[in-house]
Amino acid sequence: MKLLEERILKDGIVRPGGILKVDSFLNHQIDPQLLYAMAEEFHRLYEGCGVNKILTVEASGIAIAAVTGYVFGCPLVFAKKGKTKNISDDVWKAEVESFTHGGVNTILVSKEYLSAKDRVLIVDDFLATGAALFGLRDLCRQAGAEIAGAGIAIEKAFQGGGDRLRAEGMRVESLARISSMTDTGIFF
Amino acid sequence: MKLLEERILKDGIVRPGGILKVDSFLNHQIDPQLLYAMAEEFHRLYEGCGVNKILTVEASGIAIAAVTGYVFGCPLVFAKKGKTKNISDDVWKAEVESFTHGGVNTILVSKEYLSAKDRVLIVDDFLATGAALFGLRDLCRQAGAEIAGAGIAIEKAFQGGGDRLRAEGMRVESLARISSMTDTGIFF
Repeated sequence: MKLLEERILKDGIVRPGGILKVDSFLNHQIDPQLLYAMAEEFHRLYEGCGVNKILTVEASGIAIAAVTGYVFGCPLVFAKKGKTKNISDDVWKAEVESFTHGGVNTILVSKEYLSAKDRVLIVDDFLATGAALFGLRDLCRQAGAEIAGAGIAIEKAFQGGGDRLRAEGMRVESLARISSMTDTGIFF
Repeated sequence: MKLLEERILKDGIVRPGGILKVDSFLNHQIDPQLLYAMAEEFHRLYEGCGVNKILTVEASGIAIAAVTGYVFGCPLVFAKKGKTKNISDDVWKAEVESFTHGGVNTILVSKEYLSAKDRVLIVDDFLATGAALFGLRDLCRQAGAEIAGAGIAIEKAFQGGGDRLRAEGMRVESLARISSMTDTGIFF
């Protein structure tokens, strides 16, 4: 998606350790008009696939999932990290290694909100090693929900997660697919 | 806002300890069409106030902030809890006690994204003791940002946070204001 690639080139910052900082427009400060354009692109890609639920994981996936849900006209669910008082024990759970924060998180979704009746579009801001997506796929499998596919803002293709998921049969659509990143540039 | 009050009466569940569970439509599974209607109401209330930034705190405020940002045509920023690798040390910080989770969280916003140039609408899903709102107000004060006011989905008025903030001069608009909650009902 040209609009997103141009924005990454304009405002993205490459940090040591394979980190792409896009927090001026995607995951700390967020440009909702850009999200809307991205959501419309997801809708174009997945129109006619029977999507009736958007699934993401907190925190930075929520904004794009909210706008995507609005464009699709269906609810979104965000998987929570760890355990809070307000969530019942009746949950689907998966373990996810965090590339950004380090460590392992348990992600969970209440069984009430993910079931065999759902046809799910998984949405997230980043796809790198694929850890979050594998975890969300795991939740869907436990629930018996069908996965229409994934809609990703930025795929760091050189980290291989997207290709692993595709090799296992998941449809993964990334709006910007970065093949390499160095101090001198970002290459799609 | 009648639409939200009706939805609370239909789908909200009162739990012991003053907890209102609205996670079927507001903060776990989310109805984005309802968010859009709420965002339009915030826009009606704050039109002409010069709002150029929406501020919230992760995680459950992000969805409503994203849709509100879209309707206002301005960026949103969400304060992060704790510290992550991707955030520089150049941050505004405040301490917030969590009513839902227990314990104290540090919330932080990068100085790049909140400054004296901003006229802020603070948005959140819940207002109870006001801890999150006091923390977000603190961040704005550190940044020298002006606060146009707060837009809240559900205020639990009986917990007093909203009135304390109003008494200190903040404009606080809540779309559903609950005066009391018991096993037998929710009263606005």
